[in-house]
Amino acid sequence: MQKILVANRGEIALRIMRSAREMGIKTVAVYSEADRDALHVRYADEAVLIGPPPSGQSYLVGQNIIAACRQTGAEAIHPGYGFLSENAAFARLVREEGLILIGPSPEAMEVMGNKLSAKAVALQYNIPMVPGTEQAITDVSDAKKRAIEVGFPILIKAAAGGGGKGMRIVNSAADFEEQMQLAVSEATSAFGDGSVFIERYVASPKHIEIQVLGDSHGNIVHLFERDCSVQRRHQKVVEEAPSAILTPAIREQMGKCAVDVARSVNYTGAGTVEFIMDDQLNFYFLEMNTRLQVEHPVTELITGIDLVKEQIRIARGEAISFKQEELTIRGYAVELRVYAEDPANNFLPDIGKLQTYVTPHGPGVRVDDGFEQGMEIPIYYDPMIAKLITYGDNRQEAINRMVRAIDEYKITGITTTLGFGKFVMQHEAFISGNFDTHFVQKYFTPGVLQHDNEEEALIAAMVMDKLLSGKKTAPNAPAVEVASSNWFKNRKQN
Amino acid sequence: MQKILVANRGEIALRIMRSAREMGIKTVAVYSEADRDALHVRYADEAVLIGPPPSGQSYLVGQNIIAACRQTGAEAIHPGYGFLSENAAFARLVREEGLILIGPSPEAMEVMGNKLSAKAVALQYNIPMVPGTEQAITDVSDAKKRAIEVGFPILIKAAAGGGGKGMRIVNSAADFEEQMQLAVSEATSAFGDGSVFIERYVASPKHIEIQVLGDSHGNIVHLFERDCSVQRRHQKVVEEAPSAILTPAIREQMGKCAVDVARSVNYTGAGTVEFIMDDQLNFYFLEMNTRLQVEHPVTELITGIDLVKEQIRIARGEAISFKQEELTIRGYAVELRVYAEDPANNFLPDIGKLQTYVTPHGPGVRVDDGFEQGMEIPIYYDPMIAKLITYGDNRQEAINRMVRAIDEYKITGITTTLGFGKFVMQHEAFISGNFDTHFVQKYFTPGVLQHDNEEEALIAAMVMDKLLSGKKTAPNAPAVEVASSNWFKNRKQN
Repeated sequence: MQKILVANRGEIALRIMRSAREMGIKTVAVYSEADRDALHVRYADEAVLIGPPPSGQSYLVGQNIIAACRQTGAEAIHPGYGFLSENAAFARLVREEGLILIGPSPEAMEVMGNKLSAKAVALQYNIPMVPGTEQAITDVSDAKKRAIEVGFPILIKAAAGGGGKGMRIVNSAADFEEQMQLAVSEATSAFGDGSVFIERYVASPKHIEIQVLGDSHGNIVHLFERDCSVQRRHQKVVEEAPSAILTPAIREQMGKCAVDVARSVNYTGAGTVEFIMDDQLNFYFLEMNTRLQVEHPVTELITGIDLVKEQIRIARGEAISFKQEELTIRGYAVELRVYAEDPANNFLPDIGKLQTYVTPHGPGVRVDDGFEQGMEIPIYYDPMIAKLITYGDNRQEAINRMVRAIDEYKITGITTTLGFGKFVMQHEAFISGNFDTHFVQKYFTPGVLQHDNEEEALIAAMVMDKLLSGKKTAPNAPAVEVASSNWFKNRKQN
Repeated sequence: MQKILVANRGEIALRIMRSAREMGIKTVAVYSEADRDALHVRYADEAVLIGPPPSGQSYLVGQNIIAACRQTGAEAIHPGYGFLSENAAFARLVREEGLILIGPSPEAMEVMGNKLSAKAVALQYNIPMVPGTEQAITDVSDAKKRAIEVGFPILIKAAAGGGGKGMRIVNSAADFEEQMQLAVSEATSAFGDGSVFIERYVASPKHIEIQVLGDSHGNIVHLFERDCSVQRRHQKVVEEAPSAILTPAIREQMGKCAVDVARSVNYTGAGTVEFIMDDQLNFYFLEMNTRLQVEHPVTELITGIDLVKEQIRIARGEAISFKQEELTIRGYAVELRVYAEDPANNFLPDIGKLQTYVTPHGPGVRVDDGFEQGMEIPIYYDPMIAKLITYGDNRQEAINRMVRAIDEYKITGITTTLGFGKFVMQHEAFISGNFDTHFVQKYFTPGVLQHDNEEEALIAAMVMDKLLSGKKTAPNAPAVEVASSNWFKNRKQN
């Protein structure tokens, strides 16, 4: 494999090109008219214009990507995340054209791209599922009967859905019909498919996901978990690995389940099996993402493995470069997505020009970004500026380092999630590990960002450091145990 | 410990302040008039002007540092490296003033600050020494008699020396008198002390050093080795950890020797025991540096330990945060010192303004720097702009990543060692591990930097990656074995 086309933009395009360059592989960028001056265009060895914004006329046009491969002689395509990365039709087109997609087969994408077929294959391996319907439902009275069996509160979810669209929580049988009709109509308009399924609503859920890799020789391994429970607008904003609350036994069980899910579709490449976890540490299969995740760096930091290089090696027919038993967790990593968004205004995108853009440096800090000082954040795309990732010997060190790195990050001209990230890092619920996907709704109000918490932060960090000093924390143990935490009470029982 | 004064400037001042900040400790910067706009001044919570350049009127004036502590209420002083960091008189003054020096005792500094007294205490622990005089010699005929016993070629070294001053290689007895007289006169003028010692000259030496930590509870541990053999003008420029050529058995032996050397002076804090190694992998004690080394980050990356935090904890009376047996090497790290120097002009300093200054990002890259775009590199100080450190799952990945990071580093306005670093990373001798402290003299001529080797680099990286893929390299094994290499032949015998 001499040349790879990266069918993406922004930080992930750069991320992929960096690994390709380290492997001695040439890279081709594609770009829209809005991205003429983008960093990924400058970073690549060659670049091909593929159309105007929005994405539907450029980054999402499979034929234009194929044409760019033909034009430049690229033999393989890395789709990154988003855009065409989970598009089975595109994967099939790439195969028909005799090119290599750095990702799983179109068949695996198809099965996992639909929640119901994904659950159907996972059931064959006895993967735990949230109690609910196994089939897509459209009939309201059938659905109501099943909902009563499962028990309220229940959740109605679009079969083809994602990102919270077509999703409804129903607290009692009396509300069911109305909410179901709303969910079906939302799902129809968002995805062109009104079928839904219903399941028990997990009231205090954590989002825990397992990174897997599969190769064409039948090897499938997992690379432990990521906790992505801190979300805003149903989308992840802070991720960490390992989780503050998993026990080694549950980690092993979840890893085995994830490998089984991947095996059910003969998975090749990098993928992520997502689970929901309740406050008793029961976990249930949610879905599988058949691509590289945004938050993959935290896994890279705790395992030492470059996931993009593994993807490329697998795509050229090689075996995964390590065995499951060789892999260990060392240290702790946390990631903050630095979005051009205004947390004080419901996290709505804030576009404009990066007047000042100075990144943090020093020990344990990784920045994956796609912009430089003076650049514009275009209106057409996901407003992520960068991913800020910190590593520490233990969880509290990674958190303290994140606060330090946030303070060093200087961005002016655009409102970002940096201040919000500092709020999360300094919040008792986050520090204790005792938080769920409702963190933002529970704790965050724009007012908390009005004050500069620097003084308090220093005191908090000092107290933490003092608590930790002298005694070595057990591997993956939470740095501080908070007496009121359900997570820890339950952790000890399990 | 609420507040630390950092008695240094540039990257190391920032490095120390970063760890202090992560521990919730306030920081005080000191600065000369030439450093009014320096980054370390802005980074600290407070800053005190301590005099004009050169260092003799500011950074080296112990009384001014003490006064700055009094003025700001700082309880402890971190001296960094260079300046007052190994000055026993200053350490004594700090103690007398009731302040804490983050470093070893003045007594340990004194013993280790003199090569002869250092060797004398090390001998009590049977640490291997290069055959030679155990006492300082000034008498030429006595010295000649001993030189004949040791065997030529021999090396004459100033007892109080360093940095190559007062050093002479003598190939035969006939040349001895003249060379000894020259060495004595050089040593007298450079250090005010003409005493020298003589020892067997190791023809193909590697510089291998062991990081140690000691605490006030009597614990002393080592953090494995660094190979610092690539030097220019007798000073390190590329460092790596672990060494490409050490066997686990020799690593353990050297670690034990280093711990013994530290124990001989009841060492507290971070220190480095330096060894010279011949091409049969025999190692001999050189000296102990009683401070943090410039190249400490490579050790941090392979162990996960923050050495500055350990220094601070030890200084406040705590035990080292880990046990020797808990420590393992994971992966591989390499550091390039990015100097404002012209490699084509004998590495002479090149001062001026950083017209462009864009640092590399992404996986496995750490930048410890002290400058921003638009800043001047002052004429008065060490011309180091930054340390660029890369980490990889194996040695070749760290090297390929260093090449990638060098290509991303954009510095204009000043000539740097970046291009030289790329030359080192792509040189067969470096890649194989089969190199010694004469690397620059043997292989480097300014002409090699005239061509852009990017094409060849990509091919080389691709070939390397191909060789490595599929099979996992053994921990710490060199990525590629070169048949003609003495190092590897000997490694197999050992």
